[in-house]
Amino acid sequence: MQFSVYTPPQAKQGKVPVLWYLSGLTCTEENFTVKAGAQRYAAEHGIILVVPDTSPRGAEIDGEDDDYDFGSGAGFYVDALVEPWSKHYRMYSYIIRELPEIVFERFSADQARQGITGHSMGGHGALTIGLKHPDTFRSISAFSPICAPMACPWGQKALMGYLGDDRDNWKYYDACELVSSGHKSGEILIDQGQADDFLEVQLMPQRLQRACEDAGQPLTLRLHEGYDHSYYFISSFIGEHLSFHAERLQS
Amino acid sequence: MQFSVYTPPQAKQGKVPVLWYLSGLTCTEENFTVKAGAQRYAAEHGIILVVPDTSPRGAEIDGEDDDYDFGSGAGFYVDALVEPWSKHYRMYSYIIRELPEIVFERFSADQARQGITGHSMGGHGALTIGLKHPDTFRSISAFSPICAPMACPWGQKALMGYLGDDRDNWKYYDACELVSSGHKSGEILIDQGQADDFLEVQLMPQRLQRACEDAGQPLTLRLHEGYDHSYYFISSFIGEHLSFHAERLQS
Repeated sequence: MQFSVYTPPQAKQGKVPVLWYLSGLTCTEENFTVKAGAQRYAAEHGIILVVPDTSPRGAEIDGEDDDYDFGSGAGFYVDALVEPWSKHYRMYSYIIRELPEIVFERFSADQARQGITGHSMGGHGALTIGLKHPDTFRSISAFSPICAPMACPWGQKALMGYLGDDRDNWKYYDACELVSSGHKSGEILIDQGQADDFLEVQLMPQRLQRACEDAGQPLTLRLHEGYDHSYYFISSFIGEHLSFHAERLQS
Repeated sequence: MQFSVYTPPQAKQGKVPVLWYLSGLTCTEENFTVKAGAQRYAAEHGIILVVPDTSPRGAEIDGEDDDYDFGSGAGFYVDALVEPWSKHYRMYSYIIRELPEIVFERFSADQARQGITGHSMGGHGALTIGLKHPDTFRSISAFSPICAPMACPWGQKALMGYLGDDRDNWKYYDACELVSSGHKSGEILIDQGQADDFLEVQLMPQRLQRACEDAGQPLTLRLHEGYDHSYYFISSFIGEHLSFHAERLQS
């Protein structure tokens, strides 16, 4: 597995907060690193950025490279339950356990001050992992996240393919379900472009908004006229997300 | 020919200044657009960014795609004089005449307020084109430019290949020669990384510094410890270049 890390100058003086960024379908650890322009803000705030890949690579599973929305590049941040995926496709455990062990051993990163964010499939990852681990992640944000994977084609394909047809197992990886069943975090920040082609069919932020209202989970959902699903959208607002996390991770 | 344009919100109210960005070897109009994070600063200052490709594409010349440093992706911002390049490889005329006609017809760009910048081969382009057209370009800057193409392998290969072996013709495309022969501009800003693998053999900013001192051409050459030749370097300082140009193009 490959991953990107940006360490700010402040990390030379001691441990600094960490922001995990989870990428979307088809991405590797490079897309955000090259396109988002986040390093400047991470340098200002003194935050380490960790950017994982989105799936195992070269697991030698039949068909793993066939679809852009399943298999390689599309791990969906779940631990697969069904063959042949269950051996290697364990992105949930990778993000929550395996990669942190490496990061906290090798980098000047403060385990007590972690935030999590992501885009699209990675926004789904940030929301679900953040909500399940509020003691680990003190701040959660997302760009254009898949908010209700059990109700959208990308999510249904991934959850069926990796977890099988028992929908009870899917609920563990659906932000709306997690909020409705009592998982809680501090204020969540979501930015969403209104010219995003995937907004209605795949992303469904209004469903999460309703679930948060019903459950009393604080959510700031900002809709931006004219912005699409691309990294140009992320680069336009990544500075505000860094500020959002920095404020919550400062001390 | 393809090119990228970024128009800031201010362009809706009337004509705004233009900054031309010329890219380096192997680049298209996409690299800077995707990687440099310049749009945020252009939006703040109200500047249109124009980003041309680096050569003709698909000219169907034997061997045009064989080398990374000659032919496609490597037009070197010259008008070729020798066959088979002289018909299509006319990047100098493209930048100075053909593309501006399109830009000033289609976009809300102020012809009286133009600046020029670029990276590596494109830094060479910005310096030489800017120095030859001080009435057109009121501000010049460059990242890691090829400062003395007549004295470095990249430059010699391109100038010999496009212009032939009469070195008098090369002088028209060499920033050091242009400064030494009396071409003048306002203050030029150059940023250069000290961990740039190409610094000594290909870029040679000190030669330009000496030529500028001898000729009384104002030059600010900033050397940055630890920075390499990549777009991470550009993205770290592009905001300061936008400010440099904005200051000179404001009124």
